[in-house]
Formats: sequence, structure tokens, C-alpha cells
Amino acid sequence: MNKINPFFKRNNKVYLKDVLKILSIKKVKSKNYKINDIREISKASKNDITFLNSTKYIDLVNKTKAKIIITNTKYKKLIPKKFTIIPVGNVFLEVAKITELFYPDSTDDGFDENISAIDKKKFKKLKCGKNVMIGKNVKIGTNCSVGHNTIINRNVKIGNNCNIGCNVILKNTIIGDNVNILDGSIIGKKGFGFFPGKKSNIRYPHIGMVLIEKNVEIGCNNVIDRGSLSNTVIGENTFLDNQVHIAHNVKIGKNCIIAGQVGFAGSSSLGDRVMIGGQAGISGHIKVGNDVKIGGGSGVIKNIPNNSKVMGYPATDIKNFIKENKND
Amino acid sequence: MNKINPFFKRNNKVYLKDVLKILSIKKVKSKNYKINDIREISKASKNDITFLNSTKYIDLVNKTKAKIIITNTKYKKLIPKKFTIIPVGNVFLEVAKITELFYPDSTDDGFDENISAIDKKKFKKLKCGKNVMIGKNVKIGTNCSVGHNTIINRNVKIGNNCNIGCNVILKNTIIGDNVNILDGSIIGKKGFGFFPGKKSNIRYPHIGMVLIEKNVEIGCNNVIDRGSLSNTVIGENTFLDNQVHIAHNVKIGKNCIIAGQVGFAGSSSLGDRVMIGGQAGISGHIKVGNDVKIGGGSGVIKNIPNNSKVMGYPATDIKNFIKENKND
Amino acid sequence: MNKINPFFKRNNKVYLKDVLKILSIKKVKSKNYKINDIREISKASKNDITFLNSTKYIDLVNKTKAKIIITNTKYKKLIPKKFTIIPVGNVFLEVAKITELFYPDSTDDGFDENISAIDKKKFKKLKCGKNVMIGKNVKIGTNCSVGHNTIINRNVKIGNNCNIGCNVILKNTIIGDNVNILDGSIIGKKGFGFFPGKKSNIRYPHIGMVLIEKNVEIGCNNVIDRGSLSNTVIGENTFLDNQVHIAHNVKIGKNCIIAGQVGFAGSSSLGDRVMIGGQAGISGHIKVGNDVKIGGGSGVIKNIPNNSKVMGYPATDIKNFIKENKND
Repeated sequence: MNKINPFFKRNNKVYLKDVLKILSIKKVKSKNYKINDIREISKASKNDITFLNSTKYIDLVNKTKAKIIITNTKYKKLIPKKFTIIPVGNVFLEVAKITELFYPDSTDDGFDENISAIDKKKFKKLKCGKNVMIGKNVKIGTNCSVGHNTIINRNVKIGNNCNIGCNVILKNTIIGDNVNILDGSIIGKKGFGFFPGKKSNIRYPHIGMVLIEKNVEIGCNNVIDRGSLSNTVIGENTFLDNQVHIAHNVKIGKNCIIAGQVGFAGSSSLGDRVMIGGQAGISGHIKVGNDVKIGGGSGVIKNIPNNSKVMGYPATDIKNFIKENKND
Repeated sequence: MNKINPFFKRNNKVYLKDVLKILSIKKVKSKNYKINDIREISKASKNDITFLNSTKYIDLVNKTKAKIIITNTKYKKLIPKKFTIIPVGNVFLEVAKITELFYPDSTDDGFDENISAIDKKKFKKLKCGKNVMIGKNVKIGTNCSVGHNTIINRNVKIGNNCNIGCNVILKNTIIGDNVNILDGSIIGKKGFGFFPGKKSNIRYPHIGMVLIEKNVEIGCNNVIDRGSLSNTVIGENTFLDNQVHIAHNVKIGKNCIIAGQVGFAGSSSLGDRVMIGGQAGISGHIKVGNDVKIGGGSGVIKNIPNNSKVMGYPATDIKNFIKENKND
Repeated sequence: MNKINPFFKRNNKVYLKDVLKILSIKKVKSKNYKINDIREISKASKNDITFLNSTKYIDLVNKTKAKIIITNTKYKKLIPKKFTIIPVGNVFLEVAKITELFYPDSTDDGFDENISAIDKKKFKKLKCGKNVMIGKNVKIGTNCSVGHNTIINRNVKIGNNCNIGCNVILKNTIIGDNVNILDGSIIGKKGFGFFPGKKSNIRYPHIGMVLIEKNVEIGCNNVIDRGSLSNTVIGENTFLDNQVHIAHNVKIGKNCIIAGQVGFAGSSSLGDRVMIGGQAGISGHIKVGNDVKIGGGSGVIKNIPNNSKVMGYPATDIKNFIKENKND
């Protein structure tokens, strides 16, 4: 079973030789070694393959349970000899290829062909609109509603007392209790991660999902992408306004309030009780702490500690922002 | 009848004792006094209950026709003794609860279950797409068109010579003559107003509607929320481009031109003949005068007088903006 | 045949007298001269009418093949006497009216009434969702997929190996091979170009189309408008993220990467291999060169030369941006 995302079937017959073939490498020993999965260094089990792309994570190497590490040629000497090291030129590109080997359908984001008109009677106390389509193995809790023209793809799981609006598209998503998803939102497609090529771009596999915790509200026309190697998460009791964009791997904490047209780039994260004004943007891989207030229109391009109030582009302490602009 | 919005049924049997019960207050006299409605201080009639949350409106107290005023404990002594004063800790929170008492279905934004395939013959010269769904008590003027997959909820009223695109969702909206609403726009849902709670947020009731005056054009994938205690208004001959976001209670004047991806926070207002460049944002409760030009990308965080040209974040006189950035 | 856009039928019986009647001009000779089309000055053929609205293009006058030039009264004396000169007060307004004379249906953006449920068998190896609607004269290459509820209007042409998502609306668009268009995108409607009037605005005719070259990906909920007198173009192997807005006449080069919520105003252009971070905006008529990197949230209001890295609002060299903000 895929521990990250139950939605993509894992190939259970991957051997080291298959990995090496993809990487065009011939020298490494133990080619018939069976590999279970590809995981991040802190999460890999002993039969998994893992990877190191930054010296920032070098301390984790000694703690990892994995025995095989893909890394950049220049980091090779930093890794203890007890590991089987696979040196490559571009770690993420090769990891992408290997991930696709394990999860062959993780880059295929075609619509669900095995969808059919919902049979209302199969669900408890379901209010159901016209033209609702539903895939196989979908779970919907008791006392929910699903609006007109909405498409729920295979494997989606929805909790109790949830309201899904009209024209919504859900895939690769698990939704807690008491969640409202408003009209026109699109949740769970692959993220905008890929390796640019001259002729065509190579899509990074997206084996993560979207986890929406209980009591969340998602506004109209939002787009929330699923994670690549981890999940995209919207924490408990967080409310999103309209036209918000949430990229792959974003983690949003509990009790956050996100106003209209805010955008999150890939792998950014928020703590709990964060408030963000309209049209603000959070750059990729940025960490915002707990109890932070971010003014409307701000562009957050560095980490923000707990309890801060920031505004501006680039976002700075709100006192500085006011001081700098007092004559305007 | 609800004077603000004919779309929500008013509870006509509300007594002061019901209001006090919600507020957990036992001391106030005249508990069997029947209350007609809850209205803003300037609009309340003698049998309405009203509220004061800021000393800014203290002058209006002597002019109000209402006899019962909810206010913050600290403002209690500012109000003449002839009024029945109900002191509370959080005025807006208590007003929200009382509003819901009068308009019990104003926080329910579920899809319209009593919708059915449109019967083209019931309307004059209607061009009608496939899969159009329509609620009860919808009026559509002569010579209109409604595109494929569009959903028109109950009570919506559309004027003559209007074109409603495909995949549009309309609710709680009144539309004048010669209006074009383009594909994918969602108009009339409740706004993003609520009281944050630790476990769950309490939605502010939205008993306002969206009023779209004649000759207006609304672009694709716009979202326009209805008002909370007043209406959201788009004035005559105003044109909105694509992906514009208009929050609750926003008032836009006549002959305005609003470019793509512009966002309005709640209760902001524009005068007439205002031009706004793409991606600009207007903060909540901000007033922009007549004949104002706002440059693309601007963030307007204070009121803008008539005839101004502003640009920047925060938006400032365009001459300053150019001067400050002349070396870039 | 319309050389710019095969989607709008051209009126082949336009005489100079018809043009003059629209312009309320009575003095010009050769009224029975038949006119073929209205074209830009560099593209006009000898039987076309053309126009000059800026001294910037005065050099092109001597090279144009056209014999009739509409121009502002003040530029009249700059044009050699061999041309038939039609002096007007507002060139673009009059050109709009004349364009509509040639292309009478170019301002009509009503939904396609002659649409019907797709017949899958008419196309090679087509995967087709539920409720897909298709207009007349649509071409779809081999091995494509079209998702649920998608609407493909008349005359659209789609290449081989393309995936069109769910809830997509396509009109006036030609799509190359291997293109992915994700859920909820709306492509090919008329742009936001018009002449403001006191009572009603006059729409600029949009006789251009949207050209999407091979290997392109268009994210979710994007809106791409077709061109007015030229085409809107998305170059080969360019990828757009979610909620991107592309106005009329925009030209995007090859191998560009455009992140979420980016907006392009009318007639802006990008070279090849341009990367743009999330929420950035490009002003109207701005030219961005090749190999440019534009930081997230930037507002580009002047032309950007090749190989630049810019950031900020207004966008400036990234070194300046970092220096100016180093204390934040």
C-alpha cells in the first residue's frame, strides 16, 4: 500500500536493476535487490530507496533506515560507505523518473472515465443536485450535500455533514467532517512541478493528495493542487475565501483565515491562527509561523516568525511598512 | 417583506424576550415588545432593533427611529436614557446571532434543490443552451440568452436583452436590462464574513443581495458575493474584466472600468467613472471617489478623493509613484 | 477568406461609400471603390483599407500596399498625397466600426446554439467524458481526451494527443499536438477592449483567435481571450499554472513557464524561455525579451531586455530590488 496516498497503485516489483536502467548506470552492485518504495530521507524504511539533494539534510543520513541513497556526484564523499550510493547529475530529475517507475499512473491526470451518475440511495441522508457524477470507491458520510454538475472522481473520501457546491471537481482528496466546498473549486489535480526541456517538459510525479481537515471552508473558484511526494494540507477550522490558489505540498495550519485571491507557491507552509489579507502571495518553500498577520497585497519572500504582523512587497514588519509610507 | 432582500423569508414573530434569550441577558424590561426587524441605525424604523459599534456614528443615535439599541458596554453611557439599551461585549457577534433569528435561512447557502430543466417556452424570445437549470420564481425578460450548463437559482430576476453565458451560477441577484454575464462567473453567494472561534467559525448572516444595474458586463470566472446587511451593487454601464473578485457589501458606481484580476475587499466602494488597472486591490471599507484612475497592481489602503490618479502599493499620487521609481 | 481568423465570416461586399456612410463623411472621392478588408498598415494588401494612429508608424506608410488610410486629422499632412486619406477624430473608434462592417458577427459572443452531444465515433481514439458538447466543423486529432461537461464551440481545431479537461469552454481556438488544457479554463472569448460611452460602451471587434502551439499546458481556471485585429498566441512547450489571465493580442513565446495567478494585459508580449513567478502582472503593450526571469508579485510596466532578471513593483533589476529591501 502507498503510505502517502492510497490513490495511486504502487508497482510492487521494482528491483535495483530497474532503477539503474532508468538512470543509465551500470556500476552499482546488488542489482537484484528488491526495492519497496522511494521516500524522503527521514521517512524511508529499510527496503526503500531515498535521496539527498542538499547538505542541509546531511545529519539525517546517519538516522535514515534506507540503505540506498541517490545523491549528487559532489555529495558522494559526504555519505558513509555503509550505504549504497547512486551518484547522479540532477537528483530531483532522477527521483522523478524513479517515482514514476513506482507509481506509473501518478503523472496521468486524465479525467475519470469510470464515472457515472450518482445513486443517491447508496449514501445516508444525502442531498444531491442534478448531473452529479461519481467515480468508483467514493465514500460520502452522513448528512452531506453535493450540488449540481459536480464531479467526484474515484477514491475521494468525504466526512459527515459536508456541503460540496455546484460545478466542483474533486480528485485525490480526503475531506473531514463539517467541511464546505463552494461552487467552482477544483481540488486534487497534479501540481505545477516539472523539469523544463527544450522540446518538452518532464512532469514531476505527484503521488501526494489533498487533506482537508474538519470544519474547513473553501471558497468559490479556488484551485488546490495535490502534493508531489508529501500531501497538501488545509488544517482544521481554516477558512479560504474565493479565487485562492494553493500549490502542491502547501501545509496550512488550523484556524487560519485566508482572504480572496491569495496565492501560495509550492511547499510553502503556515502555522495556526494565521490571517492573510486579500491578494497576498507566499513564495515557494517559505515557512510562516503561528499567530502571524499578513496584510493584503503582501509578497512574503522570507520566513516569518510566530506572532509577527507583516505587510508590503517584500513583506516587512508592519511598523516599518507604515513608517516607510507615511508621506504617501 | 424584507426591504433589503426579497430572497430571504423574515421571521415575523420575534419578541424582545427572544432576542434577550439569545444574548443570555435577563435584566432589560419590556420583554414582550414585538420587534419588526434588525436594521442599521440610519435605516431602522420605530419597531426595529438597531446597534451602535463605533462613536463615529454617535450623531445618528439622536436621529434614529428605533427605540432599542444594542451597543458595547463602554458606549452605554453615551446613549440617551430614552432608548432601551442592550449592552454586549461584541456588538457584531450578537448582531449576527439576532439577524439569524430574523432570517433563519440567511446563512444557509446550500444549492437550490427545487431546480429543474428550464422550459424555454415560458420566456419571451429566449435563446437557451443545453442543461440549463432554473429555480422557482425566476423572472427573465424578453430577448435574453442563457448558455449551456448555467444554473439560475430561485427568485433571481433578469431584465431584457441580457446574455448569461455558460457554466454561470446565479443566486440572490437582480439584474437590469442589457447586461452580459460571461462564462464561469458565480454571483450571489454569502460573503466571507464570520466570527472566528477556536473550534468553529460563526458565519455572519448575509441578507443582502447582488444588484447589477443596466448595461453592465461581468467577465469570465468572476465571483461576486452578496451583501450582509446591505446589498452588493454594480452600477450602470460598468464593465468588469475576467477573474475579478467582489466581496460582500461592495458598491461600484456607474461607468467604471475594472480590469482583470482586480479584487475588492468587503464594504469598499467606488464612485462613478473610476478606472482600475489589472490586479489592483481595494481594502475593506475604503471609499474611492468619482473620476479616479487607479494603476494596475495598486493596493488601495486609504480613501481616494475625486479626480485622483493613484498607483503603487500602498497607492499614492501617480506623480509621487513615478518620482520615487524614476531610477528603476 | 479571413486571413487572420477563419472563424468569422467576412462581408465581401463592402464599398468605400459604405465605409464613408459609417464615418458620416461625404467629401472623399472614388466612392464605388470596392474594399477587400481592413488590416494593419504593415499587413494591408492593395485593396484593403488601413489606418495610422501614431507617428511611430509613419515610416510604414511609404511601404504599405494599401491605398486608403484612415488617420487622425492632425496627421493628415504627414501622409503623401498619392493615398486617399480619410481624416477622423478618433482613429480606433472608427476602425472598430469599420471592422464590424467587414465582420458583422465579431462582436457577438453568444454561446453556440448549434451544439450537440459529441459523437465519439466520429473521432479517432477519442476518450470522451459525459455531457461533452460540440459545435459544427470541430476537428479533433487522434488519441485525444475530452473531459466531462466540456463545451467545444464551432470551428475549433484540436491536434493529436491532446487532453482537454472537464468544464472547459473553447471557442475561436486552434490547438497544436500534445497540448493539455486543464479543468475549468475558458479560452477564446472576446477581449476587454471597448470604447467607453456615457450610456453604453462600444465593443471593439475581436476578429483574432487564440493559437495554442504544440506541447503547451494550460492550468485550471485560466481565462485566455482571443485577439482583436491580431491573434493571441501561446508558444510551443510553454506551461501556464492555475488562474492565469491572458488578455487579447498577447503573444507568449516558446518554453516559457508562467506561475499561478499571473496576469497579462492586452497586447503584451514575451520572448522565449521567460519564467514568471506567481501573481506577477505585465502591463498592456509591454515587450519582454528572451530568457527573462520575472520574480513573483512583480508589476512589469516597461519593456524588459533579453536575459534580464527583474523583480518588484515596478519591476526593476533584481540586484536593485534586493539592495533596496536589504534592511527589511
